[in-house]
Amino acid sequence: MIKVAVIGCGYWGPNLIRNFIICPDAELVWICDLNKSRLEKVAMPYPSIKHTTNFNDILNDNTIKAVAIATPVDKHFDIAKACLEKGKHILIEKPLASNISQGRELVNLAKKKKLKLMCDHTFCYTGAVRKMKEIIDSGELGELLYFDSVRINLGLFQHDVNVVWDLAPHDLSILDFIIKETPIQINTHGVCHAGNDLENIAYVSIYYPDSFFAHLHLNWLSPVKIRKTVICGREKMLVWDDLEPVEKIKIYDKGIEIKNLKHEQKNKMMFSYRSGDIYIPQLDNTEALFEVVREFIGCIRKNRKPLTDGESGLRVLRLLEAAEKSIKSNGVNINV
Amino acid sequence: MIKVAVIGCGYWGPNLIRNFIICPDAELVWICDLNKSRLEKVAMPYPSIKHTTNFNDILNDNTIKAVAIATPVDKHFDIAKACLEKGKHILIEKPLASNISQGRELVNLAKKKKLKLMCDHTFCYTGAVRKMKEIIDSGELGELLYFDSVRINLGLFQHDVNVVWDLAPHDLSILDFIIKETPIQINTHGVCHAGNDLENIAYVSIYYPDSFFAHLHLNWLSPVKIRKTVICGREKMLVWDDLEPVEKIKIYDKGIEIKNLKHEQKNKMMFSYRSGDIYIPQLDNTEALFEVVREFIGCIRKNRKPLTDGESGLRVLRLLEAAEKSIKSNGVNINV
Amino acid sequence: MIKVAVIGCGYWGPNLIRNFIICPDAELVWICDLNKSRLEKVAMPYPSIKHTTNFNDILNDNTIKAVAIATPVDKHFDIAKACLEKGKHILIEKPLASNISQGRELVNLAKKKKLKLMCDHTFCYTGAVRKMKEIIDSGELGELLYFDSVRINLGLFQHDVNVVWDLAPHDLSILDFIIKETPIQINTHGVCHAGNDLENIAYVSIYYPDSFFAHLHLNWLSPVKIRKTVICGREKMLVWDDLEPVEKIKIYDKGIEIKNLKHEQKNKMMFSYRSGDIYIPQLDNTEALFEVVREFIGCIRKNRKPLTDGESGLRVLRLLEAAEKSIKSNGVNINV
Amino acid sequence: MIKVAVIGCGYWGPNLIRNFIICPDAELVWICDLNKSRLEKVAMPYPSIKHTTNFNDILNDNTIKAVAIATPVDKHFDIAKACLEKGKHILIEKPLASNISQGRELVNLAKKKKLKLMCDHTFCYTGAVRKMKEIIDSGELGELLYFDSVRINLGLFQHDVNVVWDLAPHDLSILDFIIKETPIQINTHGVCHAGNDLENIAYVSIYYPDSFFAHLHLNWLSPVKIRKTVICGREKMLVWDDLEPVEKIKIYDKGIEIKNLKHEQKNKMMFSYRSGDIYIPQLDNTEALFEVVREFIGCIRKNRKPLTDGESGLRVLRLLEAAEKSIKSNGVNINV
Repeated sequence: MIKVAVIGCGYWGPNLIRNFIICPDAELVWICDLNKSRLEKVAMPYPSIKHTTNFNDILNDNTIKAVAIATPVDKHFDIAKACLEKGKHILIEKPLASNISQGRELVNLAKKKKLKLMCDHTFCYTGAVRKMKEIIDSGELGELLYFDSVRINLGLFQHDVNVVWDLAPHDLSILDFIIKETPIQINTHGVCHAGNDLENIAYVSIYYPDSFFAHLHLNWLSPVKIRKTVICGREKMLVWDDLEPVEKIKIYDKGIEIKNLKHEQKNKMMFSYRSGDIYIPQLDNTEALFEVVREFIGCIRKNRKPLTDGESGLRVLRLLEAAEKSIKSNGVNINV
Repeated sequence: MIKVAVIGCGYWGPNLIRNFIICPDAELVWICDLNKSRLEKVAMPYPSIKHTTNFNDILNDNTIKAVAIATPVDKHFDIAKACLEKGKHILIEKPLASNISQGRELVNLAKKKKLKLMCDHTFCYTGAVRKMKEIIDSGELGELLYFDSVRINLGLFQHDVNVVWDLAPHDLSILDFIIKETPIQINTHGVCHAGNDLENIAYVSIYYPDSFFAHLHLNWLSPVKIRKTVICGREKMLVWDDLEPVEKIKIYDKGIEIKNLKHEQKNKMMFSYRSGDIYIPQLDNTEALFEVVREFIGCIRKNRKPLTDGESGLRVLRLLEAAEKSIKSNGVNINV
Repeated sequence: MIKVAVIGCGYWGPNLIRNFIICPDAELVWICDLNKSRLEKVAMPYPSIKHTTNFNDILNDNTIKAVAIATPVDKHFDIAKACLEKGKHILIEKPLASNISQGRELVNLAKKKKLKLMCDHTFCYTGAVRKMKEIIDSGELGELLYFDSVRINLGLFQHDVNVVWDLAPHDLSILDFIIKETPIQINTHGVCHAGNDLENIAYVSIYYPDSFFAHLHLNWLSPVKIRKTVICGREKMLVWDDLEPVEKIKIYDKGIEIKNLKHEQKNKMMFSYRSGDIYIPQLDNTEALFEVVREFIGCIRKNRKPLTDGESGLRVLRLLEAAEKSIKSNGVNINV
Repeated sequence: MIKVAVIGCGYWGPNLIRNFIICPDAELVWICDLNKSRLEKVAMPYPSIKHTTNFNDILNDNTIKAVAIATPVDKHFDIAKACLEKGKHILIEKPLASNISQGRELVNLAKKKKLKLMCDHTFCYTGAVRKMKEIIDSGELGELLYFDSVRINLGLFQHDVNVVWDLAPHDLSILDFIIKETPIQINTHGVCHAGNDLENIAYVSIYYPDSFFAHLHLNWLSPVKIRKTVICGREKMLVWDDLEPVEKIKIYDKGIEIKNLKHEQKNKMMFSYRSGDIYIPQLDNTEALFEVVREFIGCIRKNRKPLTDGESGLRVLRLLEAAEKSIKSNGVNINV
């Protein structure tokens, strides 16, 4: 039984709590939040779990082997660092830290201490994304050509971050999870309609070393909600519509074949189109966050690397910073 | 009765012929194509219409007052110029010409000769786009914030032009038709997967003097066909889904209100969301091309400016050239 | 403050509890269930609410003015009768009772005792059904012609009732709520594929005195889930798709006008079609069950008749019994 | 080369003409219609085809081996009989004849004369229905349980037939094509809102000897257009949505397994649900009517029985008559 604490009981903390309670091989011992009334409300249904507003109670409890951090991002670094120094494994909300140097310090500290540092890239643990990874890894799609994601709705305008920091982490963590190549360049175009320098629409282009290309449309000001991703391969194409209740992923046996006609004039090509069956795989419906905590506990017990480790959190952070730099510089290309 | 000739009987010519035949106040006298067998096949059902492979037969027929040109774009300039010099009004397929200097020469010549030069921006004559223009002109949407269009499918890869030249004219002519402001800057990011320097995916960002912004996603290599445009105003938002058989346009009484809290700390804002009824107006189902030829004949008879005149064709051409320049320069911003 | 008890803590009870807790002017004092462990689990988050497995504790508490009954239907009669005799108002799950004579006895007893007997026809309190009623009552649809409902999915086969008893109460209570006329005849055709005499598909036709007609398609064995109702009036038509997350109700300004051509031959008619705008009203998203408990408490306080009173429960029960009789008699018409 | 004549140039005739022209091994020689101006208009694009208003010109042309009849139904019998007596094969629009005795006479005459009598059940030749038949014949769906079809829209009210005669032939011919069993009983409930005894809504239930069951919802007065059929088998389920442009057929690997628990109490069953992948087969897009004329010509040349022969037309006619009898008798069950 690995004894666990959850720090931060705001929006996401209660979900972590709920899943740690049912996670095999884990025992949730402490929950912590600075806000006493919120803490007590969250703690009420679980009388056997201790709660505290003083995070040192957790730091100093040597039986606690693992800590999940769901505080605001500006507290991530201090709390995670203190925990790592006390020899505790860490599961941390995304983004990993407020900037890359902090993120890198956490990754290095965890490595030095031989502790797990796992990022809660929840989407990577959904049935849909796991199925997509499985399909891509199988080679069924052929050479990957592009990834196009639309993530728009009339969403909550954030007061402190723009739409890139709010929504892009989802797509960037998914890209990091399913695409083996590392991006080399990024640019972002955006507009702010609220008069506060926080863009509410952004179009992000991400270039990879080969011909693969990714594009994100992020938008808080759309009358319709869309969560749709196309992943196009040379053999087959895949569409993921996350708003579909059941038929989330469709695989299209469609493509185009290009033949260079050598004996013909320069640049003359022949295109032939292929259109076949469509296939909708059944997906695992387990709650993604349950898979997250199970992965965390499993990695500690088996001493293996988490699927979404600190390095992946660092790579997402690097792209976020570059996207931000581009959008503030009129969309120039930023090498990453 | 205005006597008319149609030059070019390829893909689009027969549609022009069919509509001139039923257009009041017009009499289709000649049709012309260089390909004799194609010409005869097109002419067969209309024994009373003369046909010729020699375009001079039309030039020299002084009874012909109006000519519609549906040839390949590289013939537009020569044919239109010759017709204008012979005092004939012109309806011309888009794009107006192969480059801006040719386009400008045609516009100037028509002006000098006091002849109509009309561009066949067909989409502007659909019930959907006319309704959108009516709604925007009424002010119902409030200040316009953005236009986002997705025009993708597994389309025919063209041999001579990239996806921007193939698909962007549709959106650019619609933007020119419904938006009063003139764009000031454009950039285009794209990828080519066919190994021939002709991009098959392009993302076009268009900046306007105020906060209005337009974005086009153009793609020949998508497993799904999408033709969807969002036009967002500060008061209401509009979605046009051209693949919907009936409910093409939806107007959402949705929005966000932003209040600056002056007495509070800097940059602190309050957002309030509004979500009301949705309204789907009935659209006129008349074939758009019939409206095109009726507008052309009407403008000649009443001596008024066409809704989509040579100037509009020139503006579209200018944006196309700038988009092309940007995509070939790694997406740099081009002033227009 | 009206003191309330909830009896039955199975599937629906906890929802009643949750809503009574937040209902103004109500104070939830007791909850009761025969199953002690279930009762304690449900009671845990609410330490201030008393719980008991002995229903007499509630009967004998004279401060309790109102009781909500969410037990299995075969217990409805005894519990409701005992409560009414003790002078307590009743909110009861549907169906009201196991048979009409029991139902009638409860209605009569409540009337004699001057107590409220309200049926929890939850659907009638959804934003969608309330909006439909408002539209119908306004006369906007014109003379009502038909109601067609499809309520199908791969649902839980029940062990004790057929698909009519399981699903028809939803539609019958809605019909009772929105249609002023009383049905005169019903027939039901169905099939059983489970080999146990419990039909899993049923088609119910309901005739009204005038030309209005209702039809229900109920099905537990469908690969797709559909919850769609058409209400057709002579002036306008309405479609309610309960699976749409937002655009649940569409009002179509469509119709057909029929003119008898008197001077022409017999039976010769002229039909003209009308197709206009479509309108999607915004709906109130308040949880329907909260509106149910608020109505119950409001009726007690203001001494007025509930929107869905015992009589309405009785009318639904009468149609259910007739539908059952028909389906077991090869679909014969049953007068009601 | 089989020489062919088409009789009747109204709505459907020109489609037959167009397809016979491109059909291998067929030569369209004559077309015929009583209305001279319509005939000439239809004939104009085909100067090499003879046309006549006198049907005897065709009867007396001994080179004509095959005749397609697309006249109003009340002329079917006389024309087809005369042609058969002259030794000509017949392709006839549905329904085969005005009543069963006429239909039977035609079938017998064709048999006696050893001529082909084929019904133009066009739907059976669509890619969708052929694929459905292929899937059913393969046994992939397992034992068939039911067929549920919804065929509704704001359609043209007919002046001479009700919605059953107008729309049911489509579904009845499909059922006849894909289901091996023969129906034993039918009933139909309907309503007329036009005041002329011609029902515009009908619900048709069709019983088969085993547990298979079919139901049709036919409606001319619906605000929305639906063409959706569910075919449910014990192993898999199929949905055909004819309004989908591409994804018309979906096969659901879904089902329910029922186990009788023998040692438990009577009627106690256990249901287990199965939900797997979904599969959307690509369909042949050849125009169905081209397949019809090809089948007709092929059957004559190879002397084999048409897929939709006179017998199938007779079976459809028998169900239509029974459905009509039921709807006029308040929905009683009619044995067939």
